[in-house]
Amino acid sequence: MSDNKKNNQNNAPIARQVRGFVDNRADFLTRRNALVGKILETYKLWGFEELETGAMEFADCLGKFLPDADRPNEGVFALQDDDEQWLSLRYDLTAPLARFVAQNYDAIPKPFRRAACGPVWRNEKPGPGRYREFWQCDADIVGSALPQSDAEVIAMLATALENAGIARNSYVVKISNRKLLDALLVSIGVPVEDISTRLTILRAIDKLDRLGLDGVGALLGAGRKDQSGDFTKGAGLNASQIDKVLAYIQTRQETRAQTLANLANLIGNNEIGAEGIAELSAIDETLGALGILPQMAEFDPAIVRGLEYYTGTVFEAEYLETTIDEAGNEVRFGSIGSGGRYDDLVMRFRGERVPATGCSIGVSRLLAALECAGKMPEKMDGPVLVLVLDKDQIANYFQMVQELRNAGIKSEVYLGSAGMKAQMKYADRKNSPLVILEGSNEREAGIVTIKDLKLGAKLASEITSNEEWRQGRPAQFEASRADLVNIVRQTLEQGAK
Amino acid sequence: MSDNKKNNQNNAPIARQVRGFVDNRADFLTRRNALVGKILETYKLWGFEELETGAMEFADCLGKFLPDADRPNEGVFALQDDDEQWLSLRYDLTAPLARFVAQNYDAIPKPFRRAACGPVWRNEKPGPGRYREFWQCDADIVGSALPQSDAEVIAMLATALENAGIARNSYVVKISNRKLLDALLVSIGVPVEDISTRLTILRAIDKLDRLGLDGVGALLGAGRKDQSGDFTKGAGLNASQIDKVLAYIQTRQETRAQTLANLANLIGNNEIGAEGIAELSAIDETLGALGILPQMAEFDPAIVRGLEYYTGTVFEAEYLETTIDEAGNEVRFGSIGSGGRYDDLVMRFRGERVPATGCSIGVSRLLAALECAGKMPEKMDGPVLVLVLDKDQIANYFQMVQELRNAGIKSEVYLGSAGMKAQMKYADRKNSPLVILEGSNEREAGIVTIKDLKLGAKLASEITSNEEWRQGRPAQFEASRADLVNIVRQTLEQGAK
Repeated sequence: MSDNKKNNQNNAPIARQVRGFVDNRADFLTRRNALVGKILETYKLWGFEELETGAMEFADCLGKFLPDADRPNEGVFALQDDDEQWLSLRYDLTAPLARFVAQNYDAIPKPFRRAACGPVWRNEKPGPGRYREFWQCDADIVGSALPQSDAEVIAMLATALENAGIARNSYVVKISNRKLLDALLVSIGVPVEDISTRLTILRAIDKLDRLGLDGVGALLGAGRKDQSGDFTKGAGLNASQIDKVLAYIQTRQETRAQTLANLANLIGNNEIGAEGIAELSAIDETLGALGILPQMAEFDPAIVRGLEYYTGTVFEAEYLETTIDEAGNEVRFGSIGSGGRYDDLVMRFRGERVPATGCSIGVSRLLAALECAGKMPEKMDGPVLVLVLDKDQIANYFQMVQELRNAGIKSEVYLGSAGMKAQMKYADRKNSPLVILEGSNEREAGIVTIKDLKLGAKLASEITSNEEWRQGRPAQFEASRADLVNIVRQTLEQGAK
Repeated sequence: MSDNKKNNQNNAPIARQVRGFVDNRADFLTRRNALVGKILETYKLWGFEELETGAMEFADCLGKFLPDADRPNEGVFALQDDDEQWLSLRYDLTAPLARFVAQNYDAIPKPFRRAACGPVWRNEKPGPGRYREFWQCDADIVGSALPQSDAEVIAMLATALENAGIARNSYVVKISNRKLLDALLVSIGVPVEDISTRLTILRAIDKLDRLGLDGVGALLGAGRKDQSGDFTKGAGLNASQIDKVLAYIQTRQETRAQTLANLANLIGNNEIGAEGIAELSAIDETLGALGILPQMAEFDPAIVRGLEYYTGTVFEAEYLETTIDEAGNEVRFGSIGSGGRYDDLVMRFRGERVPATGCSIGVSRLLAALECAGKMPEKMDGPVLVLVLDKDQIANYFQMVQELRNAGIKSEVYLGSAGMKAQMKYADRKNSPLVILEGSNEREAGIVTIKDLKLGAKLASEITSNEEWRQGRPAQFEASRADLVNIVRQTLEQGAK
């Protein structure tokens, strides 16, 4: 910053970010990209092919499948193209897939197994852990009505999570089916057309985790008053109807087969219930063949997924550890992936039903879960830094990094204009493992001085207890200039141990 | 598609893409991601740290540094946030970097060496090879005024291109400096304030490749009539002024030192010229220390870069091979990367000058150049496909893929509802190297049938000439079910030879 020429700052823009958008630095990106890489590798191993659609789509092609998005352009970022057609940034990776499949129906293999990892955008209010730009890793099978397809994406979701570092027994994929709920409603005499009651019941079931059986029971009946005194009107069911719903959400057992038996007793006697149970049964068999143990995936009829477009199987991968929320309370971590069957999404374009099923992993949620599990890699080593002691000798310093880079060693010459102290501070900010110094004395003697910053930091913390060892391997030493590359490599290898 | 229920199609959206946006399939993505990976690896080896900013920025933060973008929101995709502030999709990776640096100035290492690879968006008219969404790979050094920083990014650009597969001697980085042009204008008596004449001269010089010396001479003088009879008004220079400009654009020689000597003779006698030559001289020395040979990077004073924001060194990596354009003509391939010094971009926010320099590789241009050089990898092998001959035995088929996947072999069970012929067609569309069949006879005998599709395709093309060999290794054979994984692995390894 040698030039301090001041500008008229009255009209200067303020450097700021759009709410809900973040700048991601190197350490985060290395972690995220490794994670996405492992998930994508799993998807490919399972025969899914990568497809990347554009960031923008015609708004009418994306449709309105966002949670509570009854108003147009609510929830999405939208703008008008120069021909006045509305464009939207994609809000998920599924709606563009439906458009792609409809557009390329005759050219693609069917079933079409698609993998996609990338950012999506939602024009919603950001909050803690809630962004307007975030990454998803999706895999979908379009064109198969078989329940085995559902099992395939469920099994793959569990495998991808484990490959990404989530420990077995610290998560579970909970599976249900819309048909079970329909069968339950039939069996308690709520007509399929009574959408309002149906929705109130679903919302009540969805609160089991938070309110417990009593709370859900109240919401199924007359209603519930919460601690603040606010009253939520209930579904108005009678006592025997409530009992049946509460029995339904308690059908879950240790094994999938036991849960299925419970469900068969409760709702197996109507057509839609028998159909749902048959589908879950096929899913159970396939999960078994794919090596998915009971603790990795279970049937849980209390699972209700929010998105309107699911038509059959739904599932949610829950991370079972607890974490601390913004208010400082210990809470269950919750969902790190989800999915389900959506047989109607492509029909919007083609008129004919194209069955589809898929899973989606939320990348920032998964990263947070790994962090919560203590699976944070150490800060990455930065580049080796060659200090500039004599400005007129800078070509010599470039010669050094050229040799180091040719040997695959990350390195750079300091390119600022500051002195020695600032250069060392720079090395510190870059997390350089070591720096190389060559002043005129060293140059004449054909040597360089190497400061091992990692060792130096370690010694500084151990200095009283480890004086002798320090004598044996000092954090600063001289080396032959001709042998620079080998000595740097050895020092880095020792530091990595 | 068992369900043919027809929808009312009157209101069905048409599945279509936004102009200038493309769907990228697996083969392309594998190629592109490998390319981007190699470039990013080079940037990191040179001490650059990755930074990813959001897709959207406040429009006033991005500024208006697009080519011929005098009108607001022209050239960019922009929309209003709910607080009525204008947001834009980033049109390059440099403007967001300037915002980031201004916002985080005290927290980042300085100089700040930033690498970024990702999509950018331009609201322009798409055309052949011209998209509204495309990828760039950028590296920048912010906070260094040293010409050695320019040399560093130029040397890295050349190295990254070679690491990405561009052969030495098939490209050259052409380097110039805005100060040389300024010195030339001073030396022929065109005032710095005469922006109109200055611009006309720059545009004329920029057409050297296309019009040759005579054409440029005409545009420097009274003007030029093209083949269609259209007249372009010239800069109105006199004969001796024109001679000097033409001499200037012919200063380029085999080596950087020779070109520098020519320039010193022509424009070294004024202050700005001497300054520009001193900078190029430091660049030459640094390029030498970094192993950049004369044929990898040369000084070419005829280089004029379009973007308004460059303030000093400018450069362009040109791919020297020819290609066929849309009209069927053989043309020079042209630019695959570029960059330069932009000392004023951060000043917009901070009032004080923050010197910066950087390079940018256009990913689709580079992919096209590699394609043009015949560096296209073969189509990737798809997954091994297990056919479904007996639907009630599907769990057995899943068991097979489970074994294959555990051994790292990409594989899947056919999940459609069609018969044998359609399943083989599916394998073909997925580019499966082999398929596995197990019918009831095989199951009883404890065997499977393997069809080697790669070998089959090869044999089909060689069938008359190679009958004997075919007998020795048939494209279809039986294998023990217990030994499935080993035999599939061996077959795939043979096919890869």
